[in-house]
Amino acid sequence: MDSYTELKEMIPDGSDPNLYPSMSGNNPAPIGFEGQDEAQRASNLYPSVADDTPAPIGFESQVRDELQENGADDSTIVNMGSSEEENEKATLFFRDGKRKIDFVLAYEPDEEDEDEEKKRYRRSTFEKNIVDDGLILEHEDKETSKNGKTYFTKVHVPWKTLTRYAELLNVNMPLAENDMHTEFADYFESCWNKIPSPFELDEDVLPEETDYFTAPFNRSRIDQFIIKDKDTFFTNAQRSKICYEILSRAHFTDDDEEDDRHNKKFGIRKLLDNQTYNAAYPLHDGRYHSEHSLLTVGKDNDRHLLYELWARPGAWFKYQPLDQIRNYFGEKIGIYFTWLGFYTTMLIPAATLGVIVFIYGLATILDDIPSSEICDNPTIGNYTMCPMCDKRCTYWRLSISCAYSRATYLFDNNATVFFSVFMALWATFFHEFWKRKQAEIDYEWDVADFEEGEETVRPEYEATVNRRRTNPVTRKEEPFVPLFSKCIRYFTSFSVLLLFLALVIAAVFSVILYRIVMSAFLYGSPDNFIKSRATFISSISAACINLVIIMVLNMLYQKIAYFLTELEQHRTLTEWEDAFTFKMFLFQFVNFYSSIFYIAFFKGKFVGRPGGFYRSLLDTRQEECDPSGCLIELCIQLGIVMVGKQIINNITEILIPKLMVWFRSRQSLKEKSDEKVYSRWEQDYNLASMPALGLFGEYLEMVIQFGFVTIFVAAFPLAPLFALLNNIIEIRVDAYKFATQWKRPLAERAQDIGIWYGILRGISAIAVISNAAIIAFTSEFIPKLVYKYGYSPDQTLSGYTNFSLSNFQVQYLEPESVPDKMNIEIFGNVTQCKYRGYFAEDPMNPGSYNYTMAFWHILAAKLAFVVIFENLVVFCTWLVMYLIPDMPYEVKLQMLRENFLAKEALFNAEAKQKTGLRQSDRAST
Amino acid sequence: MDSYTELKEMIPDGSDPNLYPSMSGNNPAPIGFEGQDEAQRASNLYPSVADDTPAPIGFESQVRDELQENGADDSTIVNMGSSEEENEKATLFFRDGKRKIDFVLAYEPDEEDEDEEKKRYRRSTFEKNIVDDGLILEHEDKETSKNGKTYFTKVHVPWKTLTRYAELLNVNMPLAENDMHTEFADYFESCWNKIPSPFELDEDVLPEETDYFTAPFNRSRIDQFIIKDKDTFFTNAQRSKICYEILSRAHFTDDDEEDDRHNKKFGIRKLLDNQTYNAAYPLHDGRYHSEHSLLTVGKDNDRHLLYELWARPGAWFKYQPLDQIRNYFGEKIGIYFTWLGFYTTMLIPAATLGVIVFIYGLATILDDIPSSEICDNPTIGNYTMCPMCDKRCTYWRLSISCAYSRATYLFDNNATVFFSVFMALWATFFHEFWKRKQAEIDYEWDVADFEEGEETVRPEYEATVNRRRTNPVTRKEEPFVPLFSKCIRYFTSFSVLLLFLALVIAAVFSVILYRIVMSAFLYGSPDNFIKSRATFISSISAACINLVIIMVLNMLYQKIAYFLTELEQHRTLTEWEDAFTFKMFLFQFVNFYSSIFYIAFFKGKFVGRPGGFYRSLLDTRQEECDPSGCLIELCIQLGIVMVGKQIINNITEILIPKLMVWFRSRQSLKEKSDEKVYSRWEQDYNLASMPALGLFGEYLEMVIQFGFVTIFVAAFPLAPLFALLNNIIEIRVDAYKFATQWKRPLAERAQDIGIWYGILRGISAIAVISNAAIIAFTSEFIPKLVYKYGYSPDQTLSGYTNFSLSNFQVQYLEPESVPDKMNIEIFGNVTQCKYRGYFAEDPMNPGSYNYTMAFWHILAAKLAFVVIFENLVVFCTWLVMYLIPDMPYEVKLQMLRENFLAKEALFNAEAKQKTGLRQSDRAST
Repeated sequence: MDSYTELKEMIPDGSDPNLYPSMSGNNPAPIGFEGQDEAQRASNLYPSVADDTPAPIGFESQVRDELQENGADDSTIVNMGSSEEENEKATLFFRDGKRKIDFVLAYEPDEEDEDEEKKRYRRSTFEKNIVDDGLILEHEDKETSKNGKTYFTKVHVPWKTLTRYAELLNVNMPLAENDMHTEFADYFESCWNKIPSPFELDEDVLPEETDYFTAPFNRSRIDQFIIKDKDTFFTNAQRSKICYEILSRAHFTDDDEEDDRHNKKFGIRKLLDNQTYNAAYPLHDGRYHSEHSLLTVGKDNDRHLLYELWARPGAWFKYQPLDQIRNYFGEKIGIYFTWLGFYTTMLIPAATLGVIVFIYGLATILDDIPSSEICDNPTIGNYTMCPMCDKRCTYWRLSISCAYSRATYLFDNNATVFFSVFMALWATFFHEFWKRKQAEIDYEWDVADFEEGEETVRPEYEATVNRRRTNPVTRKEEPFVPLFSKCIRYFTSFSVLLLFLALVIAAVFSVILYRIVMSAFLYGSPDNFIKSRATFISSISAACINLVIIMVLNMLYQKIAYFLTELEQHRTLTEWEDAFTFKMFLFQFVNFYSSIFYIAFFKGKFVGRPGGFYRSLLDTRQEECDPSGCLIELCIQLGIVMVGKQIINNITEILIPKLMVWFRSRQSLKEKSDEKVYSRWEQDYNLASMPALGLFGEYLEMVIQFGFVTIFVAAFPLAPLFALLNNIIEIRVDAYKFATQWKRPLAERAQDIGIWYGILRGISAIAVISNAAIIAFTSEFIPKLVYKYGYSPDQTLSGYTNFSLSNFQVQYLEPESVPDKMNIEIFGNVTQCKYRGYFAEDPMNPGSYNYTMAFWHILAAKLAFVVIFENLVVFCTWLVMYLIPDMPYEVKLQMLRENFLAKEALFNAEAKQKTGLRQSDRAST
Repeated sequence: MDSYTELKEMIPDGSDPNLYPSMSGNNPAPIGFEGQDEAQRASNLYPSVADDTPAPIGFESQVRDELQENGADDSTIVNMGSSEEENEKATLFFRDGKRKIDFVLAYEPDEEDEDEEKKRYRRSTFEKNIVDDGLILEHEDKETSKNGKTYFTKVHVPWKTLTRYAELLNVNMPLAENDMHTEFADYFESCWNKIPSPFELDEDVLPEETDYFTAPFNRSRIDQFIIKDKDTFFTNAQRSKICYEILSRAHFTDDDEEDDRHNKKFGIRKLLDNQTYNAAYPLHDGRYHSEHSLLTVGKDNDRHLLYELWARPGAWFKYQPLDQIRNYFGEKIGIYFTWLGFYTTMLIPAATLGVIVFIYGLATILDDIPSSEICDNPTIGNYTMCPMCDKRCTYWRLSISCAYSRATYLFDNNATVFFSVFMALWATFFHEFWKRKQAEIDYEWDVADFEEGEETVRPEYEATVNRRRTNPVTRKEEPFVPLFSKCIRYFTSFSVLLLFLALVIAAVFSVILYRIVMSAFLYGSPDNFIKSRATFISSISAACINLVIIMVLNMLYQKIAYFLTELEQHRTLTEWEDAFTFKMFLFQFVNFYSSIFYIAFFKGKFVGRPGGFYRSLLDTRQEECDPSGCLIELCIQLGIVMVGKQIINNITEILIPKLMVWFRSRQSLKEKSDEKVYSRWEQDYNLASMPALGLFGEYLEMVIQFGFVTIFVAAFPLAPLFALLNNIIEIRVDAYKFATQWKRPLAERAQDIGIWYGILRGISAIAVISNAAIIAFTSEFIPKLVYKYGYSPDQTLSGYTNFSLSNFQVQYLEPESVPDKMNIEIFGNVTQCKYRGYFAEDPMNPGSYNYTMAFWHILAAKLAFVVIFENLVVFCTWLVMYLIPDMPYEVKLQMLRENFLAKEALFNAEAKQKTGLRQSDRAST
């Protein structure tokens, strides 16, 4: 079969008018054709969709041109369709087996819908317009789909259109091979490669990536770019991005309605919003699982490659194939996974040290003198302690808090102080190394000079902003929000935000208040059953109320944040996302952390003393911590919130997508289940879409976790370990979702992790203050130190328990605090009880208690510690920032080399052109 | 007289062979000449210096070309030399009155010097080489000079050479007129201009400056640049910079000695070093004073303009003409004056508030209860105080310190705390606004994209570094210091630096020690005269020793810093300067501030108490402050050091250059004093050169002053005022030096103030800590607060004096502390004395004194203040940094517009060229 016959067979049979629209009267290109402008030529190729007649004779030669441009050669055409494997591959292409499907539009017309006529009109106008813009379409009837309801329109971007838009969008393409191999890197690499690493990806499987120096694509300098194969010059991600650009700019009403221009009847997003299309997506690269080995299939099917190397749970200990991820999903998602991987790697030393600190605590737990005193010393263990709450609480023996005080030592020993200094520095190293990593990635992925300014204006902005002005830069008309109006909008938004943040905090504290009041109230109940369970009932109900409030506020707040961000009228999507992110983060931060902050810094701190309790809040006593301190409570709360949140997250992230996919595919198979081919586009159609806020949720989760790891690390040294374990799972869960459970997302460019970087830095700053405060005020570190060196007779901690307790003459107890049950059989006739605090009775004035000297001594020491800790950490942070350059030396060299080469290339081009001009001058004379 | 005859007359008469060297056999340009490459053409113009024959006939037409290219028109030629004024102007040109003198080389051959022959050879080779490089020379014999000893070689850079080097050096030149006028700016400007401002410069006198968008100069796109006049297209600064580039690259040994290439026998700097030339400098623009009005002369004579508008002391209240300064002296000096002006302006609000704070202190001085108690309350005033030093000091009445305590209140009241918070924020605003100012200046002066990487390698680097490598960027051979060697060098340098810093600190403290020991020793002297003046003698001698040490170390250290910086082998001048600057700054900082730090934070803080003085230092008691605190001493010391330093500086800056100029001109006039024309180049030759370290000294002075203004402002609120007064003088003194007293410095490019910015930020960070510490620990603010709200019975300060003093039973005084003279006639039989401190006798254990509760209470309050102050200020700093964008909105818009225009221009150029190519294609077929 010669190529000509083959081509003839591939010509559409007329049932598919839009594939090569409007070839009517299109004669073979005239001889003068070559002289035309390139852009003109491209748009001339398929000038209109005027009628549906079969392609005229002149068409054949044109199709051949097109195929040859796409790099088709006869041998592949002959073999096409010969095996099952080829068949699967073929579904990524048009029916001719050559044109790649770059985008799919799907719709399920509902004939009973009264808008259906309108939608049909919109679709036909839209498709006519995108064909005018240089796209090629192919339709699939609903009969060919497995569920028998869905029509598919497949979109292909031909070479001409690709190059035109690549130039418009400043896409960076390879210009020259990277010839940089610094000595040091070579040396290091050769050493490194000798060690077989189980984490390394399999070199044989990974496609060989040549490193290129790149430059923005430019058709007039097309010869200078390295084009090995026109089919693969642009990656799939770039192709679908270009396709999307065209789709999002095409109008879907007739050109006649010129006056409607401001109504913005254009763009695929609007069509999806009004249900004209049900879905628009680029295709995945094929099946993600296969019986064939990676070595034979993987190189053609990136999705399979990604699954095997990356998304498969079994690959959990491997590095991520970042370049492949970026090629498949685009830079924005690529940077997310880079950051996640980087964060996980950085957690390894932190987790290791955290475990060591914990083990140190475990190993020395029996050497701790204060807790041993409570547990083993009968005199001290038998101390009669004052009641912990009004009325219903009674006296108790100190030995009861033995277990708590042992547990407290686990998290409150000298190693913890060292560890929290370490973690403050760790956070600095984290930021500095990430900057370097980002510089590297930015350079490798050619987003270093990606300017946000190139971004397009949000349609919502164009639609809602009525005032216009001349853009001072481009001198074109554009929508514009005046400064004054902007200020008012921002101010309003900010006020509402503050109000709602206050609401969240108020909710948290009202729950605390509820717990205190409720338990007092229930205890007053005549029913004995309720009375004896007052604390239990109030705690449980408070926890439930807390949960409900958090969840209600969560839902409410997402809406409010959305509304406020819309109110602020942001011009570009990036600005909008940053504003929204910041609001959501602030809320989540307050929502998650306020109860923890309460335990860390407020609970039991302003209680007063027996006989003089502070009763400012609704005339009730405040909550107290165990005599061994609040740290253990903080630790428990942290563990529950952090680990619990992670478990719930992972379950929902794995289960919900699975269920969604199962549900969708079941639904689509319900009606018809014959042996029709389940096409690639229909498989993808049945996948869930990536959520609207995309990576937002993933980042938010990680950033809240980063807060746990840094802000409260002084109280919970195991936090990095749990975070590490979670993230190892998280990477693969996310990878699995992206690679198998979701429609392929559109490849978007990004230079960095956006506003999250600033938020992370903010968290680190808070962490320094918070860790200083936890060690100083929540842990017993400083009082022990003061006792040891200032008060202890033998410079040890023996006697510390006694030192930290004060005596109280029971006779001075306030009437409302006197316990109902005296337990005289156990405690005898109590005349004085002990409590935590540094008070002494004024000898001149019985019943009047004042702070002892030790109290002020310890307070001064605590504050001195905060001053020293903060200044030391800030100084070290500065030093680290100063000493670590923001960009790795190698990347800097490569950038310099690239600039150098670009300059040389420019010189050469100019020299050549000058010679050309001179020669032509001569020729013309 | 037609222009042809005129030209003929201007042709050199053969006595001046180097003016148009080697026209031998140079026929008129052949017809094919236009087809040659531009660079080729430029170098063909004066191909060699082979012989001295008069210019051949073909030369005339070429000279005419040259003149016409320089924009000469007949009318100016005719009027030339007609008036005295014209004459003065003419001296800035070659004898033809047309070619500008861009550089002058001067030498005074000493025939008795045996090296003279060698020097002559070097000079002739050098001048031959620079002529080869495209420069034009004109010689002045020693007979024409006023002192009769000096030969001058005048250098002119012709248009061809200018354009060639402008392209090589990436000089930014005007491309299009700036068409940006944002609404806001217009509105603001129109409002502003309605207010007549005495500070504004006279609009009529200032030459009109059109704002241009610029692009790097490129000869192949020369049509796109706005060239109104080839003579003035490049500013004088640019011309002389280009000239210097050529001079610093030319070899001064014969080309035959190719193997000598590595000996680096090139560059004017080396020739100046080995006295082959005595001076090399660009010319000033003329006389700086003139009888003519600015409106007629000033526009042609920038020096006169600068003098009248800027350097004249009478202009002290005016804004600086920054654009003119930059045009005349280059960006580096321009940025210094911009910064100095900015700093001075920023000082105005600080000084105003400082004065208000001071006045507040003055106004309320009599309301201050503690000082009134000391002065007016007879009981308190009569308190017997413990002796302030061992033996020679005796008991004294508290009322003696009345004056001191009044004065202390002036600087130690509530307003001071507020003021030091204000100053911490002021420093932040200073940095943020400077960033904006710098962005503006950078944009306006086209140094925004100035890359330090473009800088050339230091000759010293090339000469001392022996190892070579292939540059990974350019692939050219270059000298190279391996990383390991670099590390060792840096480490060595750093260690030596630390050692010497320790030496400086040791010197300061040894002086303090000397004072303590000496006064004790002198007091032990049997001579009564010496004995009674022990304190006085020791103080005076200590001050002298201190001064000597500081001065010796200063000289020594500059050498050491130089040596260490050389050791580090920096590649470029910028790196070298930054390293040197940092070292010198560290040293000066320690040298100036350590005695002040001692008073602020150590003096009197660790004294102990009567009966228990700390005697760790050489078994002597430490110095004490007055009972009203150390703040007043700190204040006096600060005032003396700061104001004294400023006065000395200003005197030396004004007097020394004046003397130098007077001396030089006297010397040069000594021998001959006939009525020869005192030429422009000789006048400039007699001026002093700008010192080698250039602006370094000026910046250092200002930065040390910035330290006084910020670090110790809590102790001395008048510091900003003194700084402001000093700087108003400083600007004009510096301006006067640059404009009238020094040779015109070479215009150098710079983008920012370099490492000084980082140093200023560091000072601000230290200032936050230091102010917090001064208020907390040196002032009486916190103790007063604690007394007022914690101990005072009536919430006022009455009783504070009593509260702050402790009692001591004299019987427990250590034997070595007992005063020699008891003054029983005045004090009676002293049984107990009072001293500053919070001690109480242990009732159980007489003679044992412990800190009271109040001590710990106050200490805790002090530390809490430090914590709150630091965190508050850091938070506000962050907020300010976050809220103020780094670049003014207008500048950003202009940059975007410039980029936009540049892109469009590129597009247009390409489109044009494509059309051209197509047309030529057609023509050739």
